[in-house]
Amino acid sequence: MDLSKWKKEGERIDSVDRDDLYIIQNPSKFCFGMDAVLLSSFAKAKKNEDLIDLCTGNGILPILLYAKTQAKSIRGLEIQEDIAEMADRSIRMNEIEDRVKIVTGDVKDASKIFGASSFNVVTCNPPYMIENHGIKNPSDAKYIARHEALCTLEDIVYQTSRLLKMNGRCYFVHRPFRLVDLFYEMRKNKIEPKRMRLVHPYKDREPNMVLVEGVKGGNSRLTIEKPLVVYKDKNVYTDEIISIYRD
Amino acid sequence: MDLSKWKKEGERIDSVDRDDLYIIQNPSKFCFGMDAVLLSSFAKAKKNEDLIDLCTGNGILPILLYAKTQAKSIRGLEIQEDIAEMADRSIRMNEIEDRVKIVTGDVKDASKIFGASSFNVVTCNPPYMIENHGIKNPSDAKYIARHEALCTLEDIVYQTSRLLKMNGRCYFVHRPFRLVDLFYEMRKNKIEPKRMRLVHPYKDREPNMVLVEGVKGGNSRLTIEKPLVVYKDKNVYTDEIISIYRD
Repeated sequence: MDLSKWKKEGERIDSVDRDDLYIIQNPSKFCFGMDAVLLSSFAKAKKNEDLIDLCTGNGILPILLYAKTQAKSIRGLEIQEDIAEMADRSIRMNEIEDRVKIVTGDVKDASKIFGASSFNVVTCNPPYMIENHGIKNPSDAKYIARHEALCTLEDIVYQTSRLLKMNGRCYFVHRPFRLVDLFYEMRKNKIEPKRMRLVHPYKDREPNMVLVEGVKGGNSRLTIEKPLVVYKDKNVYTDEIISIYRD
Repeated sequence: MDLSKWKKEGERIDSVDRDDLYIIQNPSKFCFGMDAVLLSSFAKAKKNEDLIDLCTGNGILPILLYAKTQAKSIRGLEIQEDIAEMADRSIRMNEIEDRVKIVTGDVKDASKIFGASSFNVVTCNPPYMIENHGIKNPSDAKYIARHEALCTLEDIVYQTSRLLKMNGRCYFVHRPFRLVDLFYEMRKNKIEPKRMRLVHPYKDREPNMVLVEGVKGGNSRLTIEKPLVVYKDKNVYTDEIISIYRD
């Protein structure tokens, strides 16, 4: 099947290594990384559940979650029009519009756009870095994907809480240095962190990612899972990472 | 040297494996465990710093911190009179009264007893378990050491914040399932968690302890250190644990 008609100048089409699904990416803007893959594996969604991915970017999480879960519906919300349009093309290219839809809009308006208590599951791979006001190109797509230029963690957690039904779940990936911010905002917004997993590049190194599951209205009791280690040797993935990419 | 004159009925005298220091313990009440040793190694105190250990119990942390740090003064606060008396005997038996003193009192009154902003460093190995109102013997010393019967984590963190000078540091050990409670109370009380280490019984197991350093008035930025693994094989400590016990 020739997919090349789907891509525009500067874009490329990559396999997501799953169910013959592909994604259109623009390397000058943003390409998905391991964090998206790990989040899609950490997140759970059952049949008959409605899911939304905030800050969806090129739509990698909706595409992976389409393959990995049985969620009834998957929405992806993206503020940047050109990126949302590209994500929408990926959805149509994969012919998965029956369950997946990309919506252009600001995460700060999410509960207005979709209505309060309208989802069972929220996922988000947010911008990790606190905004640096000295940066030159704050409108740059790469900058927006990585920095809290257009929305903060506080905005995202607040909207997540509004979007979730009671006992609904959310799944975040973030950098460990923001863990206190994440926990604090979650509890402040009545989402209790219930499960956490740290991702370490090697077993005896500091973690460089953290995965967190929260439950709207949940009781206080966190489970910290065993470490997720990426490499067992230089350039050699651990068996668990290989199985996350494959399963 | 015959130390037996220091002990009362039901008590025993144990080495703390450091600088010829000993501790009087009553096995029917509470004996120190690895958590105290790990906390004493995680905590840092410099020359000319004043340190207080809250919920000090038999005084194991003041004794270990006497050996491991150069803190100018070390106070241990304990609410149970008989336990505080036993801890005081250990301090006199070791002849370290020049730097270490045990005070009998309620942690909830700590900033009244010692004055606000009076310490550079606070340590605490608090009761881990949320109080279970169905328990039979809430006056039992073992129960008090393990459950929030006489003080809650909220009380401890509130008093820690009152006791600390600006930029002062605190060091806590707790169970991972309470991590959100700990972070939330710390930030609420203007103590920012800055450093955290998880302790895993084996490298591929869930952690069963967490060590946290906070800074009064600190900025948001957490460092999560590499995992601390206790056993490399059944009943065989890792090199790091051996060096923590020895150094």
